Amino acid sequence: MTAPVCIDLLLEPRWIIPIEPAGVILEEHALAVDQGRIVALLPLEEAATRYAPRERLQLSEHVLLPGLVNLHTHAAMTLLRGFADDMPLMHWLNECIWPAERRHLSPAFVRDGTLLGSWEMLRGGITCFNDMYFFPEAAAAAAREAGIRAVLGLTVLEFPTAYAADPGDYLAKGLASRDALRHEPLLSFCLAPHAPYTVSDSTFERIATLANQLDLPVHIHIHETRAEIEDSLRLHGVRPLARLQRAGLLGPGFIGVHGVHLDASEIDLLGEHRCHLAHCPTSNMKLANGAPPIASLQAHGVGVGLGSDGAASNNRLDLFHEMRHAALLAKAASEDATGLPAMTVLRMATLEGASALGLDAEIGSLLPGKSADLCAVRLDEWILQPCFDPASHLVYVAGREQVTHTWVAGRLRIRDGKPVDFDTRHLIELAKMWHTEICKH
Amino acid sequence: MTAPVCIDLLLEPRWIIPIEPAGVILEEHALAVDQGRIVALLPLEEAATRYAPRERLQLSEHVLLPGLVNLHTHAAMTLLRGFADDMPLMHWLNECIWPAERRHLSPAFVRDGTLLGSWEMLRGGITCFNDMYFFPEAAAAAAREAGIRAVLGLTVLEFPTAYAADPGDYLAKGLASRDALRHEPLLSFCLAPHAPYTVSDSTFERIATLANQLDLPVHIHIHETRAEIEDSLRLHGVRPLARLQRAGLLGPGFIGVHGVHLDASEIDLLGEHRCHLAHCPTSNMKLANGAPPIASLQAHGVGVGLGSDGAASNNRLDLFHEMRHAALLAKAASEDATGLPAMTVLRMATLEGASALGLDAEIGSLLPGKSADLCAVRLDEWILQPCFDPASHLVYVAGREQVTHTWVAGRLRIRDGKPVDFDTRHLIELAKMWHTEICKH
Repeated sequence: MTAPVCIDLLLEPRWIIPIEPAGVILEEHALAVDQGRIVALLPLEEAATRYAPRERLQLSEHVLLPGLVNLHTHAAMTLLRGFADDMPLMHWLNECIWPAERRHLSPAFVRDGTLLGSWEMLRGGITCFNDMYFFPEAAAAAAREAGIRAVLGLTVLEFPTAYAADPGDYLAKGLASRDALRHEPLLSFCLAPHAPYTVSDSTFERIATLANQLDLPVHIHIHETRAEIEDSLRLHGVRPLARLQRAGLLGPGFIGVHGVHLDASEIDLLGEHRCHLAHCPTSNMKLANGAPPIASLQAHGVGVGLGSDGAASNNRLDLFHEMRHAALLAKAASEDATGLPAMTVLRMATLEGASALGLDAEIGSLLPGKSADLCAVRLDEWILQPCFDPASHLVYVAGREQVTHTWVAGRLRIRDGKPVDFDTRHLIELAKMWHTEICKH
Repeated sequence: MTAPVCIDLLLEPRWIIPIEPAGVILEEHALAVDQGRIVALLPLEEAATRYAPRERLQLSEHVLLPGLVNLHTHAAMTLLRGFADDMPLMHWLNECIWPAERRHLSPAFVRDGTLLGSWEMLRGGITCFNDMYFFPEAAAAAAREAGIRAVLGLTVLEFPTAYAADPGDYLAKGLASRDALRHEPLLSFCLAPHAPYTVSDSTFERIATLANQLDLPVHIHIHETRAEIEDSLRLHGVRPLARLQRAGLLGPGFIGVHGVHLDASEIDLLGEHRCHLAHCPTSNMKLANGAPPIASLQAHGVGVGLGSDGAASNNRLDLFHEMRHAALLAKAASEDATGLPAMTVLRMATLEGASALGLDAEIGSLLPGKSADLCAVRLDEWILQPCFDPASHLVYVAGREQVTHTWVAGRLRIRDGKPVDFDTRHLIELAKMWHTEICKH
């Protein structure tokens, strides 16, 4: 008999949903973690003899699953949560959000907003977010402080902001930030041209070249509204996706956000190029854009992850809501109650998001060797009873308020629903300060 | 100067949303409660001189609003929460729910399920529910134990259940229960023929006569699926609503549930008769039935309240979810982001529900003279920051987990998010017992 192996942590939850293999719910199993990585997922009895953990955590009424991946957000915009509601996208952007950003955008705004958003996400079991905003070094500082994994978008717009003057300036600044942050273990990067209606063809071509040279994913809003498609037909003679194809942007590194309005040939096209979609159901409903053809996209080989979008259009960075809303919206829109069942939605919120970001070797499921990005959700509260199926309960009953523990790369960030080693009064102070500032105008 | 008047309770919240007058959010105001009724809503300073409250409660970071009205549920089915998911209505009913009910339906099932459901609703700020189920005296016992206001449906089906043998038997038992419970101050009654596809024309005629004689509302599922409309055309030669009209059921006491598929003439008809609709957005999405034409119904004078439906098809009895889902679904379905703004949704979840039940003189808004059915929602948690508009926050950001206090007729039922004078371990035991029982088969 071999001596037990010392490891950092042994987790003994009531249920484990590893996502890979698909559809499995394990009981009487343990997850072994060492040096920030999953080393084994094995029966409880076997774990007891094989491992000598420095810490053992019984989670006797919890589901353990991979940390959730938020495939599209603008984390800093958490400071604009609920700033403007119940209005259509273009009015909301032109009359409310962009003017507010023109007044307030700064590294401090980005750092503070991203810090608030990062902790909100960790609190809700999200361990990785794909961000599109400005001043990526300020966002990086906040993500590092919270200890969350982030994919920072190197945002590009045709017009100037407080961050950069023109497309060349956006790209130069973005790439310089990527260079400055290249040793951060929890950070990676996307090229993030904002949208076809804010970026020119020549800029798209330049971005396609860079994406190939640097092997970076491309993160872009696409076909969110009918109006942007009509405008593109008028201005460019083609629909927006055709411009991106022409520029050479489609491929396995392409993460289209929204994709509400896609015709059959566009679904084929996205599938042929093995593109990914960030589905943001709450945002799509709230801004009245409609329902993307999720089942058809998946059937054509497009990987679909879930995104919260920013708190200005949602109004919470909560993948539990996105899971529930994705399931509900898909069923309503397709008139098929079997559409997007709970286990499929859990996979979208984890592994599909990781795959879109090219991080599926590292996160997204509980395979040994992957990073220990995890969350535990407690299902024994009286208000959730009875529970016949924990996967269904995660999607249709529980909420982020039931997340008790969140780990990123083995590091505990949330314990008993509270940030670890962080005083949340600081977040309230920051939010108050920015609230006062924003209300001045 | 007059001496201060002794009253039971003075509430001093940060914000008050009285629902009447419409659209108002008060600050620096207090609500005075005495003998279970609202006696005044007045500026803080005035309250300080006018009243000598036996209890004063500062709710310095809370919104106070009327208790929410759940206009359609099957409270006892809380025991079947998540029992069967991701399947269409008729399969779900025929293969899962009805067989389970055939095995388990009893007064004990109804009492225990309604007790669990009643506390779940109180926990989420719901102070009144409109129930459609069996054994109303068992439901009444549970509602009385929890101290929640309830409108009990006297359910009628054409086929037998463990409760009754035939329509005459259902009606006789229902009316006998109504008679037995007539002195209960928090209970009232509806006639509740289940649906056009489970009740005959002659039974509908009898119910119409009774509704007129006894002045009872009529609570019925209507036009939930396309299939039920097609079946009705085949079997009866008319759409279901036409049968109800022919039987004389339409009028201000009519509460149609779902109403997903309504044509223009049916919307006119419901408006002409001043009918009410119980909109159950989560259930409509989850069972893939679609989106009712809410804006058009409201424009035609149909009062629209919100219902959770039962926990077997939702899977929580949570009007915060229904408010959010109603707003999101309406916007998505109508492609109009201005549809169902937050304040309208708050009115639907309170006053419109009360009006449908004929209880708007008693509950649904914070007018002096009405019963003190109230809930307080705390908005200062860091995860909800910043807050620009408390009405928007209630619909798009907060959840039932932020409800701190719920009062029914002035009696505190929830304090600091916990049931008052009730041990929730009892609910967990009941749920476990029924879970075991249900899983045996």
